[in-house]
Amino acid sequence: AATFRASEHQHIRYNPLQDEWVLVSAHRMKRPWQGQVEPQLLKTVPRHDPLNPLCPGATRANGEVNPHYDGTFLFDNDFPALQPDAPDPGPSDHPLFRAEAARGVCKVMCFHPWSDVTLPLMSVPEIRAVIDAWASVTEELGAQYPWVQIFENKGAMMGCSNPHPHCQVWASSFLPDIAQREERSQQTYHSQHGKPLLLEYGHQELLRKERLVLTSEHWIVLVPFWAVWPFQTLLLPRRHVRRLPELNPAERDDLASIMKKLLTKYDNLFETSFPYSMGWHGAPTGLKTGATCDHWQLHAHYYPPLLRSATVRKFMVGYEMLAQAQRDLTPEQVRTHILGRHIRSPHFLTGSQ
Amino acid sequence: AATFRASEHQHIRYNPLQDEWVLVSAHRMKRPWQGQVEPQLLKTVPRHDPLNPLCPGATRANGEVNPHYDGTFLFDNDFPALQPDAPDPGPSDHPLFRAEAARGVCKVMCFHPWSDVTLPLMSVPEIRAVIDAWASVTEELGAQYPWVQIFENKGAMMGCSNPHPHCQVWASSFLPDIAQREERSQQTYHSQHGKPLLLEYGHQELLRKERLVLTSEHWIVLVPFWAVWPFQTLLLPRRHVRRLPELNPAERDDLASIMKKLLTKYDNLFETSFPYSMGWHGAPTGLKTGATCDHWQLHAHYYPPLLRSATVRKFMVGYEMLAQAQRDLTPEQVRTHILGRHIRSPHFLTGSQ
Ligand SMILES: O=P(O)(O)O[C@H]1O[C@H](CO)[C@@H](O)[C@H](O)[C@H]1O
Ligand SMILES: O=P(O)(O)O[C@H]1O[C@H](CO)[C@@H](O)[C@H](O)[C@H]1O
Repeated sequence: AATFRASEHQHIRYNPLQDEWVLVSAHRMKRPWQGQVEPQLLKTVPRHDPLNPLCPGATRANGEVNPHYDGTFLFDNDFPALQPDAPDPGPSDHPLFRAEAARGVCKVMCFHPWSDVTLPLMSVPEIRAVIDAWASVTEELGAQYPWVQIFENKGAMMGCSNPHPHCQVWASSFLPDIAQREERSQQTYHSQHGKPLLLEYGHQELLRKERLVLTSEHWIVLVPFWAVWPFQTLLLPRRHVRRLPELNPAERDDLASIMKKLLTKYDNLFETSFPYSMGWHGAPTGLKTGATCDHWQLHAHYYPPLLRSATVRKFMVGYEMLAQAQRDLTPEQVRTHILGRHIRSPHFLTGSQ
Repeated sequence: AATFRASEHQHIRYNPLQDEWVLVSAHRMKRPWQGQVEPQLLKTVPRHDPLNPLCPGATRANGEVNPHYDGTFLFDNDFPALQPDAPDPGPSDHPLFRAEAARGVCKVMCFHPWSDVTLPLMSVPEIRAVIDAWASVTEELGAQYPWVQIFENKGAMMGCSNPHPHCQVWASSFLPDIAQREERSQQTYHSQHGKPLLLEYGHQELLRKERLVLTSEHWIVLVPFWAVWPFQTLLLPRRHVRRLPELNPAERDDLASIMKKLLTKYDNLFETSFPYSMGWHGAPTGLKTGATCDHWQLHAHYYPPLLRSATVRKFMVGYEMLAQAQRDLTPEQVRTHILGRHIRSPHFLTGSQ
């Protein structure tokens, strides 16, 4: 029998954080692409557009006027999926028809007064201000709600409808599905092994060095062993940190600088403003803020949709929607591409270190 | 306190089949859309193109020449994600780094010799031939593999790279993630309630009549109570059927006719060839074919990406990827739109009954 090589032989890998499997079929990158090509929006964005509701001084959908902010700016989403008051659906009359109350708050956070920048184009102190704002909003909304989801949809491909650099914050009265899965997995791992799952995972990746993308004094960026999206990465603190507000000033500065490096590498990969959805996961808040959440390790997930170039994405469709996630190149190959040492095709460009 | 109304008040709903929650925020349909608009490919497809590898008589990537088929045509995928032989990754050296062997077969099935038709444009006997071919391939590959996933990616928006009407069949040596979830949920429900989950669910929907889209002598189509995609539907036999090959001739004819009706309604909804990913789920096969799988009920899921029109899709991004699925209109509202009785905006068109 042939010797197993991950880059040649299909196999499945387990995601212990989200309790899911992924099918890895690296040999599939060889197939030609004849499918949909995404429009590349090279339209220049004006630095200031008084009609853009995210700009300083602009009027929003609800008639409010934005202040002339010069750093970050946080406000209530004018079309929130979660509102603070909503009646309870009441008891269910059948176990197959279960509905429950959902309450919450949706906010939008502008990263910068200018529309023509993105995080990697911002300075390290400007990114640090975003991190401070993330920590504050987690503290503020976490006082009341058990889950505060910070996420950024970047690029039109990720459903982002406004080019102004911004993220969203949705706080909810319930623990969302994926939070529940991560809670369960980390809890189980901690009780079985006596250490936090992601702290141990980070240590292992530092030893193995096969999937590391960037390391700094306080942070690690890696392509997880179980990554689903082609260029997915995981950003982890080296120290055991449960929630964003716990980060100390040195860790925040270092985070700003490693984020700038990662996002610059991403932009260089396909010479485009790299689209992604990203978000932070930390220990539950609300009534849980006091509870022992020692099994939790703070982390950010980056999920970029691109596969082969700035215009060819990975489609998570038929098999993925109905059976299981599937990927076309190994996490170990991806690391090399992001680092830019191995130039596989004209699509894979050298990243600046 | 206000009285709860699903179409006005956000709430969460539970999917007992896949053990997941969805956030329903129907009031959100009011927000304006300024994001990405999909290209509408109105390009006419030639009925026969000798350079299209799916056409009768054409040469495929591996050099093989297709027969001049005049019904359905099944062949091996030239770029398979699963191959029959692959070495085993061997034992794992750490619980956070688990990989396992994956073996299988990937096939492509053309539905019709012509490239310019889709299932709803085909005749009922032609669709019946597709159903027979689905049953045969399930039987053939199910003899060896525990899971045979039949799925169709329709439309460029769903990553479909060839307009010729076709589906794919991926059989695997492992039970994929979603199959495992459905296995677990149906098993538990059956042992607790003494009846198959989806059989009871179908009965309930027939009584409640709030989410039914189509019914026939042997089949039901409904928008599930827990639907995630805006126009998602579930297709169920009325009788307890575990796998496609068990369907009798009358049930197959009736299935062909209800599929044609459903897909025609979908095409009418936004006056476009409606994109979707769909697939069949039945009881596991392989060594399990003989085992009691009485908790299983055969069904097909339809997952269409569109939200507001032929060019505006629902993006499952930030919150959905990092926290939980979220939808902008209720399953009950969707039923009315698909049936075409309630014209909400110029985007929602009257479907032909
Ligand atoms: O096999 P195809 O049609 O080339 O590929 C399509 O369907 C596959 C199975 O759902 C996906 O993995 C691919 O991302 C998608 O582009
Ligand atoms: O809130 P936005 O940016 O208008 O909307 C975007 O992000 C939301 C949260 O991930 C998604 O539910 C929407 O489908 C997407 O278009």
